[in-house]
Amino acid sequence: MYGQSLVITDVRLTPVLVADPPLLNTQGVHQPYTPRLIVEVATAGGVTGIGETYGDGKYLELARPLAARLPGCRVSDVNRLFTLADEVAVDAARVDDAVDVGGLRGVQSADKLRLSVVSGFEVACLDALGKALGLPVHAVLGGKVRDAVEYSAYLFYKWAEHPAGRASEPDDGWGAALDPAGIVAQARLFAERHGFGSFKLKGGVFPPDEEIAAIRALAEAFPGRPLRLDPNGAWSVETSLKVAAELGDVLEYLEDPALGTPAMAEVAARTSVPLATNMCVTTFQEIPEAFAKGAVQVVLSDHHYWGGLRRTRELAAVCRTFGVAVSMHSNTHLGISLAAMTQVAATVPGLDHACDSHYPWQSEDVLTSRPRFTGGKVAVTDTPGLGVELDRDKVAALHARWLDEDFRALRERDDAAAMRVADPGWTTPAVPRW
Amino acid sequence: MYGQSLVITDVRLTPVLVADPPLLNTQGVHQPYTPRLIVEVATAGGVTGIGETYGDGKYLELARPLAARLPGCRVSDVNRLFTLADEVAVDAARVDDAVDVGGLRGVQSADKLRLSVVSGFEVACLDALGKALGLPVHAVLGGKVRDAVEYSAYLFYKWAEHPAGRASEPDDGWGAALDPAGIVAQARLFAERHGFGSFKLKGGVFPPDEEIAAIRALAEAFPGRPLRLDPNGAWSVETSLKVAAELGDVLEYLEDPALGTPAMAEVAARTSVPLATNMCVTTFQEIPEAFAKGAVQVVLSDHHYWGGLRRTRELAAVCRTFGVAVSMHSNTHLGISLAAMTQVAATVPGLDHACDSHYPWQSEDVLTSRPRFTGGKVAVTDTPGLGVELDRDKVAALHARWLDEDFRALRERDDAAAMRVADPGWTTPAVPRW
Repeated sequence: MYGQSLVITDVRLTPVLVADPPLLNTQGVHQPYTPRLIVEVATAGGVTGIGETYGDGKYLELARPLAARLPGCRVSDVNRLFTLADEVAVDAARVDDAVDVGGLRGVQSADKLRLSVVSGFEVACLDALGKALGLPVHAVLGGKVRDAVEYSAYLFYKWAEHPAGRASEPDDGWGAALDPAGIVAQARLFAERHGFGSFKLKGGVFPPDEEIAAIRALAEAFPGRPLRLDPNGAWSVETSLKVAAELGDVLEYLEDPALGTPAMAEVAARTSVPLATNMCVTTFQEIPEAFAKGAVQVVLSDHHYWGGLRRTRELAAVCRTFGVAVSMHSNTHLGISLAAMTQVAATVPGLDHACDSHYPWQSEDVLTSRPRFTGGKVAVTDTPGLGVELDRDKVAALHARWLDEDFRALRERDDAAAMRVADPGWTTPAVPRW
Repeated sequence: MYGQSLVITDVRLTPVLVADPPLLNTQGVHQPYTPRLIVEVATAGGVTGIGETYGDGKYLELARPLAARLPGCRVSDVNRLFTLADEVAVDAARVDDAVDVGGLRGVQSADKLRLSVVSGFEVACLDALGKALGLPVHAVLGGKVRDAVEYSAYLFYKWAEHPAGRASEPDDGWGAALDPAGIVAQARLFAERHGFGSFKLKGGVFPPDEEIAAIRALAEAFPGRPLRLDPNGAWSVETSLKVAAELGDVLEYLEDPALGTPAMAEVAARTSVPLATNMCVTTFQEIPEAFAKGAVQVVLSDHHYWGGLRRTRELAAVCRTFGVAVSMHSNTHLGISLAAMTQVAATVPGLDHACDSHYPWQSEDVLTSRPRFTGGKVAVTDTPGLGVELDRDKVAALHARWLDEDFRALRERDDAAAMRVADPGWTTPAVPRW
């Protein structure tokens, strides 16, 4: 038998709660802590690979039975993960037709849940495989075509601190940003600290005119730099077109201005501003309609919900075939995922838009050493595997928080619930909000 | 630096001429010998990987400068092969707008030439990588999802022997097949020798009524078995529809009945018989139009011209996304390519149609041991790399033939020229032929 040393002997799942700043979006505000799941896959050869994915209960419930099936498989058997995952039952009660609140990542489905779980295992397997073979993950994916991956600064409207609630967060050092001046100040900090040269503002928080003003202020402060605005589908088609008309001269693209493929297609047909999405194209099944209608010009991949790094490459191949650009979406994540995003992005030809990452917002991580942004880029490491190492003390501390009964309510990310701590009357706004 | 042992130190290109039976197609007949190129890639670690591709002059002229660029790269750097190939100049005189005669593989282009050359190198690199890592190629591609790959019997109208010409071939043992009884006898031989359970007839040779009769005879001899007919685009839309109507009850699919996407789309719109192609969808660029028009229901991939095994997987992902089936095309090839086809096919989910292979027609090979069909299937080996080994004496003998001045005219495959040996007035038929 080949690959005996690659056989999986043990899988460890560790849910953690990670500090998250009070970042605002159209559905509410990030909780003080966000759940993530750390996946460790150990091989007969004595190597352990790591991955991370969403940590809410519905993901954990799938991850546990899937983990139980892995021992005996090799870490090279990544195609098989999908078959195994298909055999794991999804609790239908956990899936509804609503947009996934925590992720702002389009309509939920059982398949999407499964793929999100698979992604954590796939990355852990590829990390272990790379370590076992002495190859960086990018080499396992066919080799890097660039030595550094560019990210954009991910700007958020935010409060200075979380509202008084059961859990409170110490000052995150970023301060508040609730108007154009605050956003520009935040962008300057991003540029100073990490060298980012392109900027994305999470919108859908304030009436469009205020967000238009913020983008205008950024354009003045950073002339010629690529700018993006993402209201997470909060606008009507008419509002989207108005924003596109007013900001067309400075926007690299507009991200999910309106919700769903038909609305996006209507916007796209009436503006020359490219539209990006991580909400109407979130699965391979959603691609044919969206591409046929010309609804999107940039698909923002996310290995967490497309099913891993190899599926991300396949998505890039589909997009390339249809002349649609590809870049990368991000949700709150740790350094494991930043390493994974960087490794796969390094292998994708024609990645012409800087990727998104929340990572600079994360004050906590589970690694012995934090990946760094230099000139807005993360260098593509050639260290075997993902090139990052788990700090077991840090994992233990964040897991202890997850176990802590005082934090139990935060095990499920719910931006609307977090908002209700400040504003008890808050409900998720109806769409279109403006 | 990682992967030092994977660094390419030497690339060897060996053109060979391989005996080929007098198989008929719409453009003429196979030559007594067909050119193939054997690619060997040696690493610093002492491993040699092998691949094969088309061996005509235009491919050799690209392969040589590309080979010169490889030393110093790792065999894991397969993504980089495409960039390197793009830098190799194509002799424009070698590319015309005509259908590639030798391949019956659609319109020629510089890109397609390059990809066909890259494929030979990519397979050699993956073979070397697998050998170096102790992993079968399927494991390098994410692992097999099946243990055997099914092939269909590839039936041809044929003469008993090549016409007297400069090169003559001893009796190939298959005899002539020029009518329904001959085709059924050939099919029985295929079933007996290799256990094939599905049958494809290369058509476009005789008037459609004769080929309809041959398929009917096969349906009677092998009731319920999947049958296919492939006239290589020789028919008009009306003829295609007539054949589809007459054989709809027994055909698994009709392959390239009419030439080009618009004609195929017209046929597809008016019949429920699925259409397969290796002529109107031969590159990623050709996919959007063909899929938008619903012109094809099965894309027959061919790693030789799609650019290798990883591109074949990407093609499968594109097809899966759009609900189009995928299977495999074949041209005259040796055991190296059969092993490569089998390894990649083993990793592709939803491969529901048996693959094509000319291999049973090849009396000569360059391997120490011939891959075998059992029950119409090739077992997916777990031996590291492709699991096949080059026989240097056999390579030397077939290369000596290629060097032999008496065989010089056969270095370029030209089925029309081969036909003119028997029929001096033969010219490639205008399309549609019927």
